[in-house]
Amino acid sequence: MSEQFHIVNEQEHNDLVTAAFIDRGFNEEEGRAAAEIAAVATTHGNRTHNALKALHLDEHLGSARGNCTPGAELIKKENRFAAAEIWDGNKKLGQLVAKEAFNRAIELADQYGVGIVSVDNAWHYLWGSGYAIDAANRGYIAYTNCTSTLAEVVPFTGKFPTLGTNPHTWAFPTTEELGFPICMDWATSTVAMGRVQQLAREGGTLPPECAVDADGNVTTDPTKAVSLLPFGRHKGYGLSLVNELTAAYIGGSIPTIRGTQNDSAEEKTTSSFFFQVIHPEAMSGSAFANGRSQKENVKAVIDDILGHGNEHCILPGQLEAQAAARTKAAGGLLFSSAELEELNAIATRLGRPALTSTPYNA
Amino acid sequence: MSEQFHIVNEQEHNDLVTAAFIDRGFNEEEGRAAAEIAAVATTHGNRTHNALKALHLDEHLGSARGNCTPGAELIKKENRFAAAEIWDGNKKLGQLVAKEAFNRAIELADQYGVGIVSVDNAWHYLWGSGYAIDAANRGYIAYTNCTSTLAEVVPFTGKFPTLGTNPHTWAFPTTEELGFPICMDWATSTVAMGRVQQLAREGGTLPPECAVDADGNVTTDPTKAVSLLPFGRHKGYGLSLVNELTAAYIGGSIPTIRGTQNDSAEEKTTSSFFFQVIHPEAMSGSAFANGRSQKENVKAVIDDILGHGNEHCILPGQLEAQAAARTKAAGGLLFSSAELEELNAIATRLGRPALTSTPYNA
Repeated sequence: MSEQFHIVNEQEHNDLVTAAFIDRGFNEEEGRAAAEIAAVATTHGNRTHNALKALHLDEHLGSARGNCTPGAELIKKENRFAAAEIWDGNKKLGQLVAKEAFNRAIELADQYGVGIVSVDNAWHYLWGSGYAIDAANRGYIAYTNCTSTLAEVVPFTGKFPTLGTNPHTWAFPTTEELGFPICMDWATSTVAMGRVQQLAREGGTLPPECAVDADGNVTTDPTKAVSLLPFGRHKGYGLSLVNELTAAYIGGSIPTIRGTQNDSAEEKTTSSFFFQVIHPEAMSGSAFANGRSQKENVKAVIDDILGHGNEHCILPGQLEAQAAARTKAAGGLLFSSAELEELNAIATRLGRPALTSTPYNA
Repeated sequence: MSEQFHIVNEQEHNDLVTAAFIDRGFNEEEGRAAAEIAAVATTHGNRTHNALKALHLDEHLGSARGNCTPGAELIKKENRFAAAEIWDGNKKLGQLVAKEAFNRAIELADQYGVGIVSVDNAWHYLWGSGYAIDAANRGYIAYTNCTSTLAEVVPFTGKFPTLGTNPHTWAFPTTEELGFPICMDWATSTVAMGRVQQLAREGGTLPPECAVDADGNVTTDPTKAVSLLPFGRHKGYGLSLVNELTAAYIGGSIPTIRGTQNDSAEEKTTSSFFFQVIHPEAMSGSAFANGRSQKENVKAVIDDILGHGNEHCILPGQLEAQAAARTKAAGGLLFSSAELEELNAIATRLGRPALTSTPYNA
């Protein structure tokens, strides 16, 4: 890292973030959940879904615009299916809802082999990996998708953005075998709108086929790009539709007004979450080659995939695990100078002391 | 279609294909299942997974090489999870196994909201859409993935093929709203090896970033391409890993020997199947905007996605539905002259009359 980083005590960070959420009207439990998932993101080297992003999001699209309700009550709805739960998120802070939803899906998977939790009226859970990695570390196969707040992505061959950047997250319990859970977690657009804006500021060029201009024509000029394209043409488009349809079955309303202030009040502006957990034993044929255990078999498969000259390839989740190892070795969360400055500005505004920090020398 | 097509009676086609499978040692039920899914593929305009492909596959990789066992008994294993079943496919014909697995997953979804069926020791189910579209037409949200027979795909940034083309299939019960189920079904490679071989024969050029040469360097020269790349860089790679890991948890052995003749007999050469069905009511928050029903809500979401200037975009499964409508209007299965010739060559070899056919004038 060429940027200067600083080591920040995790507890101090969490206390500050909790206080900042409480200052925005949230209760202690919500503030703690927001702080903890932010710390998990920072621990894993994720700089786009940290505490600053969480607070920024709440200020610009969340509670400030009625899309998130501090202190809201999560409502678990009755349904006739034993392995499925349906919740009304009631616009409650997404971080707390996602954490509870995966916990409940794990209980269902323990009992039925597979469990799903669908959440209507949801508000942004920030970083799907955070929850999925936790579930995988506890031994489960975890999956989540959600509809993104804003419709920024154009359907394949289309011109107007009617899809969210709709991420998918899968995590597998490979911690014992590899030292970390394999975790795929990405948006279904090729790049994020934040990246387009960054390149527009810095004068760069977009990769091919990742954005369109106001007329719906594909462009590599970030200053002309107004909407994103799905990754992988019709395949990424299909993956984005999976989230939109999942949300439509749960209770999401029309995508183009999602996350906006809806004056008509006839359509809903909320996102939807879907969580699924499978118990690995509920998939085991118990007949692995060479007398291997299930875990040994998973390891043998991975070793084969990354063998034969592919030894330099990385697994999804590996970079995040390396960042987590750096964080652990440093003994605190790693923030850039700019990030630390912004966190301390929040501390000052709240009348709290600046975060204790020491320069990080990798 | 510039090619000449012919209308073939579906029953005659199915009888011929059944006879061809019986001739290869399969029983009547297996032959019927193979014929029916082949007819479904042809009905939906799929020309790569029709009866000819099914027979070709069995001759070159299936029962002829010990990867598929005619008349094998499907074994349902005991497990302690109510919403999950684990089957030993016992190398039974994949078409019959996939059909039964989706039927069972539907029963589980009826009872638990979600049901999964994992199949160890599986042999190729041909066209995932065929089963998933059927489940969706019956009102369910269907998903399946499997490991492909051969490892033809190189991990992202790698050089040696250690992954299958590993397809994913999702289908949604939108038949009432749209006239057809939305169905995403594609391999995780950018193109199929058959397409590379076709371009090599015809002197064409490959799309960028879809294949590598013997040294692992990306090439657009189909005559130099020896392995495929995942679509969408690390994202398609991750999606391919989902299938490999799912298979590894079920009982699949190391990918690079899959589908080969395995002299050591210490490793398994079989593929694995995973099926999942969700009952739409098990996801419904029952609070759709504007008093809409769940189905009306799904329709409103789709209309929004394909509105705003996106009216010309197509939905996954739409081309297949249009082909099915053409087939229905024609009153029989549509085969090209070359395909019909090949089917009739099989009939001749089996001492059966040629298929009755009439030229198709679109």
